[in-house]
Amino acid sequence: MKILIVNGPNLNLLGTREPTHYGVQTLADIQAMLTAEAATLGVELGFYQSNIEGELVDAIQQAVGQYDGIVLNAAAYTHTSVAIRDAVSAVKLPTVEVHLSNVFAREEFRHHSLLTAVCIGAICGFGAESYRLALRGLVAKLSE
Amino acid sequence: MKILIVNGPNLNLLGTREPTHYGVQTLADIQAMLTAEAATLGVELGFYQSNIEGELVDAIQQAVGQYDGIVLNAAAYTHTSVAIRDAVSAVKLPTVEVHLSNVFAREEFRHHSLLTAVCIGAICGFGAESYRLALRGLVAKLSE
Amino acid sequence: MKILIVNGPNLNLLGTREPTHYGVQTLADIQAMLTAEAATLGVELGFYQSNIEGELVDAIQQAVGQYDGIVLNAAAYTHTSVAIRDAVSAVKLPTVEVHLSNVFAREEFRHHSLLTAVCIGAICGFGAESYRLALRGLVAKLSE
Amino acid sequence: MKILIVNGPNLNLLGTREPTHYGVQTLADIQAMLTAEAATLGVELGFYQSNIEGELVDAIQQAVGQYDGIVLNAAAYTHTSVAIRDAVSAVKLPTVEVHLSNVFAREEFRHHSLLTAVCIGAICGFGAESYRLALRGLVAKLSE
Amino acid sequence: MKILIVNGPNLNLLGTREPTHYGVQTLADIQAMLTAEAATLGVELGFYQSNIEGELVDAIQQAVGQYDGIVLNAAAYTHTSVAIRDAVSAVKLPTVEVHLSNVFAREEFRHHSLLTAVCIGAICGFGAESYRLALRGLVAKLSE
Amino acid sequence: MKILIVNGPNLNLLGTREPTHYGVQTLADIQAMLTAEAATLGVELGFYQSNIEGELVDAIQQAVGQYDGIVLNAAAYTHTSVAIRDAVSAVKLPTVEVHLSNVFAREEFRHHSLLTAVCIGAICGFGAESYRLALRGLVAKLSE
Amino acid sequence: MKILIVNGPNLNLLGTREPTHYGVQTLADIQAMLTAEAATLGVELGFYQSNIEGELVDAIQQAVGQYDGIVLNAAAYTHTSVAIRDAVSAVKLPTVEVHLSNVFAREEFRHHSLLTAVCIGAICGFGAESYRLALRGLVAKLSE
Amino acid sequence: MKILIVNGPNLNLLGTREPTHYGVQTLADIQAMLTAEAATLGVELGFYQSNIEGELVDAIQQAVGQYDGIVLNAAAYTHTSVAIRDAVSAVKLPTVEVHLSNVFAREEFRHHSLLTAVCIGAICGFGAESYRLALRGLVAKLSE
Amino acid sequence: MKILIVNGPNLNLLGTREPTHYGVQTLADIQAMLTAEAATLGVELGFYQSNIEGELVDAIQQAVGQYDGIVLNAAAYTHTSVAIRDAVSAVKLPTVEVHLSNVFAREEFRHHSLLTAVCIGAICGFGAESYRLALRGLVAKLSE
Amino acid sequence: MKILIVNGPNLNLLGTREPTHYGVQTLADIQAMLTAEAATLGVELGFYQSNIEGELVDAIQQAVGQYDGIVLNAAAYTHTSVAIRDAVSAVKLPTVEVHLSNVFAREEFRHHSLLTAVCIGAICGFGAESYRLALRGLVAKLSE
Amino acid sequence: MKILIVNGPNLNLLGTREPTHYGVQTLADIQAMLTAEAATLGVELGFYQSNIEGELVDAIQQAVGQYDGIVLNAAAYTHTSVAIRDAVSAVKLPTVEVHLSNVFAREEFRHHSLLTAVCIGAICGFGAESYRLALRGLVAKLSE
Amino acid sequence: MKILIVNGPNLNLLGTREPTHYGVQTLADIQAMLTAEAATLGVELGFYQSNIEGELVDAIQQAVGQYDGIVLNAAAYTHTSVAIRDAVSAVKLPTVEVHLSNVFAREEFRHHSLLTAVCIGAICGFGAESYRLALRGLVAKLSE
Repeated sequence: MKILIVNGPNLNLLGTREPTHYGVQTLADIQAMLTAEAATLGVELGFYQSNIEGELVDAIQQAVGQYDGIVLNAAAYTHTSVAIRDAVSAVKLPTVEVHLSNVFAREEFRHHSLLTAVCIGAICGFGAESYRLALRGLVAKLSE
Repeated sequence: MKILIVNGPNLNLLGTREPTHYGVQTLADIQAMLTAEAATLGVELGFYQSNIEGELVDAIQQAVGQYDGIVLNAAAYTHTSVAIRDAVSAVKLPTVEVHLSNVFAREEFRHHSLLTAVCIGAICGFGAESYRLALRGLVAKLSE
Repeated sequence: MKILIVNGPNLNLLGTREPTHYGVQTLADIQAMLTAEAATLGVELGFYQSNIEGELVDAIQQAVGQYDGIVLNAAAYTHTSVAIRDAVSAVKLPTVEVHLSNVFAREEFRHHSLLTAVCIGAICGFGAESYRLALRGLVAKLSE
Repeated sequence: MKILIVNGPNLNLLGTREPTHYGVQTLADIQAMLTAEAATLGVELGFYQSNIEGELVDAIQQAVGQYDGIVLNAAAYTHTSVAIRDAVSAVKLPTVEVHLSNVFAREEFRHHSLLTAVCIGAICGFGAESYRLALRGLVAKLSE
Repeated sequence: MKILIVNGPNLNLLGTREPTHYGVQTLADIQAMLTAEAATLGVELGFYQSNIEGELVDAIQQAVGQYDGIVLNAAAYTHTSVAIRDAVSAVKLPTVEVHLSNVFAREEFRHHSLLTAVCIGAICGFGAESYRLALRGLVAKLSE
Repeated sequence: MKILIVNGPNLNLLGTREPTHYGVQTLADIQAMLTAEAATLGVELGFYQSNIEGELVDAIQQAVGQYDGIVLNAAAYTHTSVAIRDAVSAVKLPTVEVHLSNVFAREEFRHHSLLTAVCIGAICGFGAESYRLALRGLVAKLSE
Repeated sequence: MKILIVNGPNLNLLGTREPTHYGVQTLADIQAMLTAEAATLGVELGFYQSNIEGELVDAIQQAVGQYDGIVLNAAAYTHTSVAIRDAVSAVKLPTVEVHLSNVFAREEFRHHSLLTAVCIGAICGFGAESYRLALRGLVAKLSE
Repeated sequence: MKILIVNGPNLNLLGTREPTHYGVQTLADIQAMLTAEAATLGVELGFYQSNIEGELVDAIQQAVGQYDGIVLNAAAYTHTSVAIRDAVSAVKLPTVEVHLSNVFAREEFRHHSLLTAVCIGAICGFGAESYRLALRGLVAKLSE
Repeated sequence: MKILIVNGPNLNLLGTREPTHYGVQTLADIQAMLTAEAATLGVELGFYQSNIEGELVDAIQQAVGQYDGIVLNAAAYTHTSVAIRDAVSAVKLPTVEVHLSNVFAREEFRHHSLLTAVCIGAICGFGAESYRLALRGLVAKLSE
Repeated sequence: MKILIVNGPNLNLLGTREPTHYGVQTLADIQAMLTAEAATLGVELGFYQSNIEGELVDAIQQAVGQYDGIVLNAAAYTHTSVAIRDAVSAVKLPTVEVHLSNVFAREEFRHHSLLTAVCIGAICGFGAESYRLALRGLVAKLSE
Repeated sequence: MKILIVNGPNLNLLGTREPTHYGVQTLADIQAMLTAEAATLGVELGFYQSNIEGELVDAIQQAVGQYDGIVLNAAAYTHTSVAIRDAVSAVKLPTVEVHLSNVFAREEFRHHSLLTAVCIGAICGFGAESYRLALRGLVAKLSE
Repeated sequence: MKILIVNGPNLNLLGTREPTHYGVQTLADIQAMLTAEAATLGVELGFYQSNIEGELVDAIQQAVGQYDGIVLNAAAYTHTSVAIRDAVSAVKLPTVEVHLSNVFAREEFRHHSLLTAVCIGAICGFGAESYRLALRGLVAKLSE
């Protein structure tokens, strides 16, 4: 079983950016933690990050045939991207939406996600732990 | 560490009610699964279910001093209850919102939660597995 | 054939409460009239009234296996209760929504019902007669 | 006692048009059923159908002096016609709004009626039976 | 100079219909008053009334070449008819919108007119006198 | 019979300000025209203009006992002044709202008047002629 | 293969009405052009125009059994007519919505169509050419 | 003269719950203060608190015949309960709405009260003092 | 301790203006009542009334250094004046908002106050008694 | 005459992606069909596809001087891209908006296009045939 | 070249009022800074401040013939005054809108300006420096 | 001191694109003018332009450590990009928003900026001069 972890805009800054919302771990720290978790679950991971909406679309499209599911933190594009939504719908790979912060406790424009309706489900608010839960949830779903 | 699992209206019907949205496991099945999971995590659980909004308020209030955190599936009251929100705010016990179904893929009135903003975070869409992830996420947060 | 007549908040005051909107008959008068009507239709009736939303949820849940259909006047909860809507959806008993007054000729917040979409249909504005029509309509539907 | 049954646009197609929403009975079938029902109630009926909004206004105006009340299925005009609303208000004949389908379980633009506020009340969702209930309800009201 | 007076739905009932809003004068009374007024202004009048939206469109179209301006009381269609608006725009005859009642002191759906923006201006609230003012205003504008 | 003509902000600039919307006549021209018209109608006029909302409130209050009615062009305050609305309601002098331009053919924020509902009626779009029609309409109403 | 071309209100004025939006061709010109096009496509055409909403409903109903598809320019009724929408739904003849002007570049109330959702598709903005494209598109669809 | 003091959800936590909004006095402290105040005013008090919406409805209904007026802090239900509104309307006991905090300086969903329109008036923002003012205001009104 | 009582537009008409909403007492009557009340509370009062928004801003600004708090009935400006809100914020004198009538039981545009969020709290619906309660509440707050 | 065919995000998946909405033809199939059609029309075509919004902006900018018009299927960006709208406005090349599916029969967020107002017109719902009609319509417009 | 600096309500309090939003400089400080800046630019300045909306209208009107342009900080009236907007439109003097604070980072009702659309442009967020930039920008525009 | 000037989509077309809104200067002209201005201010500049949202995010991220502040004209992305907003928030470099045209005098969708709230302030409407003012304003702020 192979899972792609997709991260959107500004997540490359993790650890330095607004630690109140996003925590002190870098994206590399999270990837290391997830790689360890994946080992215990017996699954393989791939990682992709981009600040460009259309490159995230590309990455999701190219996951077909290579991955069994996606953990997707589209960050800012969560709230504005019909293109990423359409990509998730199109590839039909089971996808879990994940957020570090509790987006519903922040600005109102972050309360609406264009993506959740085409995902299995969503997890937010646990910081880096959100990814671990998302990975476990996705693996559980794929194992059903 | 002691966690209270609070379930709201109509969740006593689980297993019989609209299996497309809510799955085939009964509430007792979920409680058994969570009890096993709690054992591996070394935490104790309490369970409460009611169809009455104010009794859920009572239960949340009474958790103070008895529990270290709450996993809360307020079901229909998620979308309408300021009273439960106020109870969560008032008791200041770390709380995780959980839903069996992907509420954002259903009717529009289910897309808005009055509770998320006063919780640590939220998990939806994984069926009974949502509870397990919520329990793990809450324990991880409480262990920080 | 057995039908449950469920009445919501403040309907226990019928006859004394705002007669312009609700008429001069008491709830007991309406029950007597309905019992007589049921006799001519060859059906049996049960009656339940509560001011507590969650008790109405309980009553609807407990109707399963005991009743073939429900005549439901949820009164004020018509406009605010996702929980009662979910109960009606969950039990899958054919249900008719009924109102004494013409709710659409009153305050704007009474123009929206959360319940109609999960009922067979709705009847409003005929005073106590609304119940009789609802009973007849439900029996006709159940007899198809 | 004389009652006018007014039917609006596309109801002349009943029986052939979208049977899921509107049933398999033709308008003639419904008229026959209502005529029989009227006989048992000791009232006389008139029937009118038009696809033209202004002709429905004409029919309602001309009912004055000829009829004691109206059963009105304005169909599509229910949601858009201030003119029919004004006609009902102007003639002051007791009027009951009726719909075959449960309009509140369909597209959102069908959830709003311009007519209900100037009618005695409304009945929807019972198919052809809706007319029978409306006739009975109107006769009961006129007999008070 | 020739002016067409166009009256919309239910205005044929004037004098009998809701005298609080519309006064006790019949449409014939108003026409007689306007004919006298027109004589003093040295203009000729034509009169048209219909309950059918499309016939009002026809009348406005046919006014081209025959009339120099229109006094238009579209009644209920004021609030719903893009077709009459388009007709007024298309014929380019100076048109004055008129209402007997003060529509802005009535139901909210009467506060919006689709027609005013394509007319010279509007007059409301003076009862039958509204027409006289409209006629005078239109003649003054045409005489500029 | 004595009528007060009240003019609001920027109307002192008439004749120089945006002639497309407001015409080339000055406020003095309009007053002269109205004085002549008043003579033929046998009524006396008073004139007041201010750019200050509260002074318009003062003027309307002070009209009580001195005037029989008011012709009111509140200009920009039409759309924002609850205070002027309250003054008109409080003094209970019959008042006619008037506008030079067709406010409904301009920016959307000019389509809503806080004043019309407490006036007899409204006239807009005839330029300076609007005042003459308003004066005539008010005199006709006062003479009833 | 037989196609009905249905035109709504004010389209009988084409060629004289606001040429900026609607072009200089008359409806007769368009019909001649379409007849020639139909000949090359080997299909037969019928034509209908009315300013009356309900007559357009009648025409659409009567097309059943006589025509294989409809090209529909409902003009102003596009934005207001649930009745025409219901007629198109009811007859189940493949229908293409067409507009001469680019309705989305005009007033906001023209941006919403009640009809598109029940048609195959829509074409706007090409002037008379819109009809030719609609005819070709419909024939292509019917030939699949 | 007898007054019932009704308190809604979470007010049993007063003194411990979010002191910034609600102050440090417990509900018992407030009751003691009010009892003293009542003595100086020569009136008797009853007290009721519940977290359950329908029990608050019950309490308001049962006040009839026992009390002359109600001081009502419905807390969270202020913003969501049509049922409590209907109870206040039905019993026709003069009622004063009261809040400890300045609800208009908090989250937007707390700015709307379903109750004020059916009460004499409302008082908010004075902490425990709000109750004393409400009691005095109610007694003054009842003494008129 | 010195308190300024500020009254806004049209309150100078009290006693003569719409007694249903505002009672029969004049502003002088209220001032006399408040002066007596102030004597029992051992505080001094100042009074200011203006119909001009900016003069109310001036008065609030000039209260600094002279008064310890403000009782503010901004009347119509309550709903429209950001300037008065800013003045209250700027001077930082504790201010209580007061209304004679129950503004929430009147027109919808009176349900929103721009001022409450920058005041201690608000009192409405007790007629002249509202002022007495406001004075007492303010003195209690200042004495804390 | 040279025409650029621009395709937006996820259209590279055509033929494999959700065939119910988008048909079974690949983008290569459509390009082949259009090339054949272009030959019969005597025009040359260029093709561009990207998933990146800004690259679509680049392509539209670079079309200036190379192409006479654009057929644009911006897919998901249709509903969110002010940047593409600005590019179309800036280059002033006649552009036709095209969609494979009937976007108005799908999710509500697909009913609004930011692009149509700056295009000649729009065509939707005919599948691959939409492109052919768009090409023909554009060529007809350019030939005028 | 002569420029008028117009300041609206509460700006006379600068330096004492909420320094977080408005800085520590007084209005006199700002005027001194601007006078110095004007000297280097070779322009003359006039200054006006009032808390009264209508006096600001007066000042803007009286600038005609005396000044070549206006720097306008309408403060609270920015968000509510159609009258000041109309004055700016009427006098046709080039006007620059200026704010000390970043109004878009404050309460939502401060995000909308009625004035910007009739000004050359707007500058906000630089504190007292905003005025200097506005003066420079206006002089640059007038010098073109 | 080093400042980065960031320009968004379609600004590379300046000078050729819609000169009414954007003026006749090219981006190179503006850069030359700014370079000269920077020399007089003793600061260094960097320039970046892209049509791709995510590349603008990249550029803002990479400014950290290299620049002391940013002048940002995000053009179309101003109204739609949460990603650029997040980048500005994340890097915490003082940023000034700038627009050539007066965006508030154009289409309504240009009235809302997602960026202003996270910037120091904003300047619009002065054409190329807007950049000079922004640069001066930013340098003034950085020099404080």
